[in-house]
Formats: sequence, C-alpha cells, structure tokens
Amino acid sequence: MPVNRQVVLTSRPHGIPQAEHFAIRESALPALQPGELLVRNLYLSVDPAMRGWVNAAANYSDPVAVGEVMRSFAVGRVVESRHPDYAAGMHVMGMLGWQDYAVTDGKPIRRIVRETDLPLSLSLGVLGLNGITAHFALSTLGRPQPGETLVVSTAAGAVGSIVGQLGRLAGCRVVGIAGGEEKRRICVEEFGFDAAIDYRAGDLAQALEQHCPDGVDVYFDNTAGRISDAVLPRINRHARIVVCGTAAIASWDPWPEGPRVERHLLNKAAQMAGFLVWDYEHRYEEAVAHLAPLVRSGALRYREEIQDGLESAPGAIADLYAGRNLGKRLIRLTSNDE
Amino acid sequence: MPVNRQVVLTSRPHGIPQAEHFAIRESALPALQPGELLVRNLYLSVDPAMRGWVNAAANYSDPVAVGEVMRSFAVGRVVESRHPDYAAGMHVMGMLGWQDYAVTDGKPIRRIVRETDLPLSLSLGVLGLNGITAHFALSTLGRPQPGETLVVSTAAGAVGSIVGQLGRLAGCRVVGIAGGEEKRRICVEEFGFDAAIDYRAGDLAQALEQHCPDGVDVYFDNTAGRISDAVLPRINRHARIVVCGTAAIASWDPWPEGPRVERHLLNKAAQMAGFLVWDYEHRYEEAVAHLAPLVRSGALRYREEIQDGLESAPGAIADLYAGRNLGKRLIRLTSNDE
Repeated sequence: MPVNRQVVLTSRPHGIPQAEHFAIRESALPALQPGELLVRNLYLSVDPAMRGWVNAAANYSDPVAVGEVMRSFAVGRVVESRHPDYAAGMHVMGMLGWQDYAVTDGKPIRRIVRETDLPLSLSLGVLGLNGITAHFALSTLGRPQPGETLVVSTAAGAVGSIVGQLGRLAGCRVVGIAGGEEKRRICVEEFGFDAAIDYRAGDLAQALEQHCPDGVDVYFDNTAGRISDAVLPRINRHARIVVCGTAAIASWDPWPEGPRVERHLLNKAAQMAGFLVWDYEHRYEEAVAHLAPLVRSGALRYREEIQDGLESAPGAIADLYAGRNLGKRLIRLTSNDE
Repeated sequence: MPVNRQVVLTSRPHGIPQAEHFAIRESALPALQPGELLVRNLYLSVDPAMRGWVNAAANYSDPVAVGEVMRSFAVGRVVESRHPDYAAGMHVMGMLGWQDYAVTDGKPIRRIVRETDLPLSLSLGVLGLNGITAHFALSTLGRPQPGETLVVSTAAGAVGSIVGQLGRLAGCRVVGIAGGEEKRRICVEEFGFDAAIDYRAGDLAQALEQHCPDGVDVYFDNTAGRISDAVLPRINRHARIVVCGTAAIASWDPWPEGPRVERHLLNKAAQMAGFLVWDYEHRYEEAVAHLAPLVRSGALRYREEIQDGLESAPGAIADLYAGRNLGKRLIRLTSNDE
C-alpha cells in the first residue's frame, strides 16, 4: 500500500489557524475491513468554516482534536471498496480530511459525484458546500422577491458570488460588498452584480446609500463586523438578514460588542437568522440539481483558485481570512488521476 | 356639546416621556360632518410602545407632533354617528387618543367590541393590543412546541403574562423573568409559570442555568438589555427569539452597544425576529376569537391596574417604565357610562 500523508492539527489556535498549528505526518494505510472503502483524494477544500472547527468554543460542532487529521471536505476517486454502496472508480465528495487517502466506513461521504461532464473540482465549490449553502440559505432564509434589493457581503467569495448571481436570477437588484478594487470589479464584471462596493475605500455608509436607494430587503452576511453595522440601519420593513459567517470577527473570546440589533429588527419587523448547511444534508442533491444546469448554461459563473500539493494546506485558512484569494480556494493533490 | 379635555404633547422627550412633556387642554367639540362619528372614551390605554410614538427617531411610525393629542388606544361608546358602519351605543376600540371624546372618520377604529359579557376594559388588554400581540408574536414567530422551554422577559407585564400562559397551553416549560419579588411571585402563583426569576436578585445567568436545564427554545423578549445578553448564550439549536420591545434601553440616541448576536444565531441556526402588531391589523378578530374563550373559561388570567381620571395620563408612561405597575395599566375616564 502507498504511504498516506496527512495534515494534522498540532496545537489549538486562538482565532484564525495559521500554518504553524498544523504538521504533515506520514502513516501506512491499513488494510480495508468489510464495510470500508479507500478513497484517493483529488481536491481538498479550504473553507472559512474550518476556523470554527479547530477553535475550542463558540461553535456548532465538536472541535477537531489536537493530533487528529484536519477535518475538511474533499473529493476523490474510490480506489477499492468493501462497502456495498460504493465501487472502485466512482467519485465521491465528503468530509474526507486533509490527507492523500481516506479509509472510511462511508459515513463521512456526502454524495457520489455524477456530473462527470463538469470539472470534478466544482463538487467542492459551486456544486459543493458553497453552492449548496448559497442555494438553501438564500431560498429558505433570504427569500428574495423580484424588485427587491439584495446586499451580499464577501461578495467575491465562493459563497457570496453564487448568492449574488442567484439573487439576480430571482429578479433582485444585487449590491456586493468586497475588500479591494479587484474583488469589487470582479463582482460587477464577472458575476454580473448591479453594483459593488469596496469597503476598504471611502465611506461605506455613503456607498450603501448611493447603491441601495430603495433600502435593503435581503442582507446576506458573511462578516458580522462593521460592514453589518453599516447595513442594518438601511434595512426595509420585513427585511431578512441571513447570517452565514462571521469573517470580520477575528476571535469570539473575549466576545466582541457591537451596535444592538434589536431596535432595527423591531422597527422593521425584520428577521435575522443563522444558517447551517448541516440542516440540509438530506437535500444536497436537490441543490446540485438546481445549480448544475445553471453552470452548464453559463448562467452561474464561478472562480477557482487552485494550489498544488498537500503542503500548501496548512497556511490556506489564514490566507483565506487575509482575503488574498480570488475565488474558491482548493488544493489539488494530483494532476493525473481524474 | 360638552367640552373635550385632551392630553397633548407639549415637548419632545429624549428617551422616556415624563408628565412634564404633556399638558391637558380643553376644546369645544365640533359638529359631526357626514361620515364622522363621536366616541365617548371610557378607558385609555397606557402602553410601552407609546415611548416610541413620541420619540423623533428610531421607530416604525411617524412621531406624534408637538401640540397634537397623544396617540393611544382607547375604548369607548359611540354617542352619535354619521358613519354608515357605526351606530350610537356601539362600543369601539381604536387609536382614539388620550382625550374624553374622539371625533373620527372611523379610520382609527380597529374593531367593534362585541364581547359584552366581559369587562369593556379587557378590549385594551388581554383582548386588545396586548393579547393580540401575545397571540400573533408567539404563534407566528415563537412557534412553541410541546416540551420546549419558553423564556419570557417582562413576564408579569400585560403582554408577557399572556405569552407565558399561551406557552403553557402550548405545552412548554415556561420560565419568566421579572423585576422584583412580587412580580416574580405573581408569574408563578397567578399566571402559572413553571418558574420565574427576579432579575434584580442574585445572578441572572446562574438562575437561567438552574431553571432552564434543557436550554432555551423560544425567547420572548421585551427588554433588549442585559436580560437578553444572559439568555442568548443559552439558546438551543433552531431557537426562535421574538423581539417585541426594548424596555431595558432607556434611549437609542446614542445607539447602545451589546454583545454581538451573530455567532449565537449562526452556531444554533437560530432566528431573531421583530414583531409589529400592525402587520396583523386585518386579523385582530381571529386573535380575539382565540383568546376570549380562554378568558371566559379561566384558562387565561389577567391583571389590570386602573387609574381614574384623564389627569393621571401624563405621568403614566414613565410609571410603566419605572416598573411600578402590576398588570395592564389603564385610565378610566368615567365610572357610570358603560
């Protein structure tokens, strides 16, 4: 059997995990037991949520233990299977971890990838967690209506860019908020937003005033910091605020303060709701069935930023929070194995 | 025609309106025009929301102008009518203002009171805005399920006490939060809450821990201050937080800060929503039809605190915010006119 390289958590970060919190270790692959399968990972995912998965507190799932392989989505090819649901040659996506190979009983697998006409990497992005999140968070909590104004934070990001495009398809005026001129431009030119704001340039409140003349009906938020504080006073009656991430908050220990939201919600009979994609695990296929045709037709565009090699994984989450990526961040493990 | 005494706003308060912000003036009643009716007000309502109605900013409706009669709910008897929908002798409830008589075109009238077997005053409390608010806010936003834990702030108040009782009827464990031992005791002994906490005594977080061993599924909030800050960390997955009032915030100018709520909402896929009873104006009869039988059977209990005379109105809102009332605060204008 080949040797398996694994990225393990070596110490618990306070805040955003850096390369120094991980190490690469090698281990022999065990022989498969009945009910198990061996997956060769081809692409590893890098997601903002991984920050929470390694932090000790204030999260929705148990943290990754120190010494464990880093939890992550990955897509790979089944090399060998003693599991009735999977056969060698199939492509599977799931919580397969930052490692070359995964030996699994099948439980971490989320879906079999059947869109073989599309790049396999998409099953971690626009047809993976990002697309599925965008689809369900927007449709169930955001509920955009034609003619409404949708504001999206981290608008050039892997989720935000899809949310904005789905909002346009739903008939909304879509205004993105992103960090830096290049991301701002991408929102408008590549993803077709009606307008986009570089929150690092100029007065954010004034820019929102200018680009949202009719107020804000849906605010899709991935930030929770001063960007949200600028949007909240502009919400309309019956606005929906979707809380999908808190990228602007470097640490929740100590717990940060901000302007109270209660009066905004009360005055506007508005709603603020957190979204966890895990609530929709049983409906992933429904989202992919909705999104894949949009990708094929070109109605839904995406950007990927792919780094090669497992060794690029440890620093990837910190890179993401530094806002240095332009598109879905992925790690490609092999270039000749699809 | 008799002289009409009216409580008018004489200056705009910053924060909670005090007696000094009002004056009583007398004016002659005009002759009725076609389409108008004359109502003799019998009971005037005193509601926490009236604070917002006289403040210049941060609200859901235009403020009462200086020099205008104070906006309020009232219930009265139709003395004379040139309006096709109303006849002399009918009892009507609506936005009739703090005054002895209202000459109106009918638009401020919310409903004709037909529960003539019950005290007329109830149409401003348990069968009025308070009961209607409790019913719709809890059923549409709180959505209590059997076995869940419902926490209610301002629990001994006109809305909170009804919310708690409706929660019990829905099969919830109901825990009230109120200010002072007497209110705490009333929640348990009169309104049948499973437990109640005096937030002024001892450690609130610890008391919540003790009385909500299974966490909090529904939080009905009328406060928005440190009480909410203590409840939020205890919410369960898919919790619903109903924002119905912000009694703990003396002023929204400058806008106060508090612990950020985003991470709580995200980690628990929870929802926080503001409730405005105006959204349900077309459904008031539905709420009364639900509540009146509960009042008749004794399943829904209420407390009233009635003051006599128009001259007690100016200081009544400040009294309410000082927490000095035990029950729905009303002003009775005449004792022999029902």
